[in-house]
Amino acid sequence: MRGVLLELAYDGTAFHGWAAQSSARTVQDTLRGAILAIDPRASPLRGASRTDAGVHAEGQVAAFDTELDIPARGWALGLNKHLPDDIAVRGARAVPPAFAPRFAARSKRYRYRVLLDPVRDPYWHARAWRLPGIDVAAMVLEAEAALGTHDFAAFRSSRDERASTVRTLTRVEVGREADPRLISVIVEGNAFLYNMVRILVGTMCDVARRRLHPGAVARCIQAGDRRQAGTTAPAHGLVLEQIDLVLPEGAGHPWPR
Amino acid sequence: MRGVLLELAYDGTAFHGWAAQSSARTVQDTLRGAILAIDPRASPLRGASRTDAGVHAEGQVAAFDTELDIPARGWALGLNKHLPDDIAVRGARAVPPAFAPRFAARSKRYRYRVLLDPVRDPYWHARAWRLPGIDVAAMVLEAEAALGTHDFAAFRSSRDERASTVRTLTRVEVGREADPRLISVIVEGNAFLYNMVRILVGTMCDVARRRLHPGAVARCIQAGDRRQAGTTAPAHGLVLEQIDLVLPEGAGHPWPR
Repeated sequence: MRGVLLELAYDGTAFHGWAAQSSARTVQDTLRGAILAIDPRASPLRGASRTDAGVHAEGQVAAFDTELDIPARGWALGLNKHLPDDIAVRGARAVPPAFAPRFAARSKRYRYRVLLDPVRDPYWHARAWRLPGIDVAAMVLEAEAALGTHDFAAFRSSRDERASTVRTLTRVEVGREADPRLISVIVEGNAFLYNMVRILVGTMCDVARRRLHPGAVARCIQAGDRRQAGTTAPAHGLVLEQIDLVLPEGAGHPWPR
Repeated sequence: MRGVLLELAYDGTAFHGWAAQSSARTVQDTLRGAILAIDPRASPLRGASRTDAGVHAEGQVAAFDTELDIPARGWALGLNKHLPDDIAVRGARAVPPAFAPRFAARSKRYRYRVLLDPVRDPYWHARAWRLPGIDVAAMVLEAEAALGTHDFAAFRSSRDERASTVRTLTRVEVGREADPRLISVIVEGNAFLYNMVRILVGTMCDVARRRLHPGAVARCIQAGDRRQAGTTAPAHGLVLEQIDLVLPEGAGHPWPR
């Protein structure tokens, strides 16, 4: 038995998120189908991160085990032939069997895109949250408050029931993209609560559009109360850009390169 | 009777091109439907440029006539409420009735995107032609040969039957985008033959991927023979970015601004 670790990119628009569901098209089921077409006896997939419906990914990772003696490159090329256009294997490497990316994730980086354009733009429709006329400078101040180790209890969905809500954000940056109508919020941290990035960005944006008073992020961290935090920013503006893994001993060379 | 001039953006992926068809979803029919929802007696649409199935637009223009006394801004906001997410009115202004953008177009600018990534990327799948490992410098030389006034008979579809095939290209530029995996070919000119940009870019790319010898564009211009030119580059890499119009006397102020 051997393990295969995959790096994945997908356009989340037509997927009902990562996690397998009996009645809807999901990334996990679609990828699993492609794996089973090559090895009907492959293990189930172990993903690093569950993404919501509509969320995109450039650097999702997932692993599975197989008895077949196919190199990582062969899996990547083979799977890409079986996968639809909105999902691709971007990288692969051999790992020991039963390797669980979820527990090996050292940090994750997300990007949230906001479109400042006063007019609808079909090009960005499924990839950015359109909020014209917001105060971008106000977001920068909110971002600073989120940086570091805090109790993020106010920034999680009521569906999240994990015991500890303390997390560390190592990067919360607001910046303009090459297209000046776009701003990106980059959020990087060791681990995240359910909907944490979307509620954090939504709260920052609520300050920027004057629905919440400046200092909202700091106040919510202190109060620990979800009802004080802002809107959950819509899924389609979010991209899971990268996951940093602590690789196990015995991991193979990466493909490509 | 008054005329309304619209500037349009659309994601061409789910449209069978601009021109109305009885059996397929087209941009012209979709826009016409939205206009008729506001004014059932509005005139047919007069577009500036027919785009093929899969081709995108940021600056398509079209005009129609109406008896309704609605300002340009009102038309833009009203139509955007009736239009689906993959098409938007980006600008509007009043023009005299019967104004025909097609005959008022002074120049058009297109952008063709090529993705150099060796691995499939779902994000760019419907927006760039993926050609890894091509010789970008070779494209720059081909681009220079296309610049200026030439007989472009070799660079038109056999379905084009216009008498004159002499056109002037004022800009043919190959450049890297902010994402270094992407190159853009910008093509600007006074008028274009059917499929001219796609055949020109396809020929440039055929040199860059060593399917044609360097100097192919210059040789094709001289020979005037479509069979010597290269591949027709796929539609989904092409964006109609801008159309410069000679505005008629009596045109109103533009919306927005």
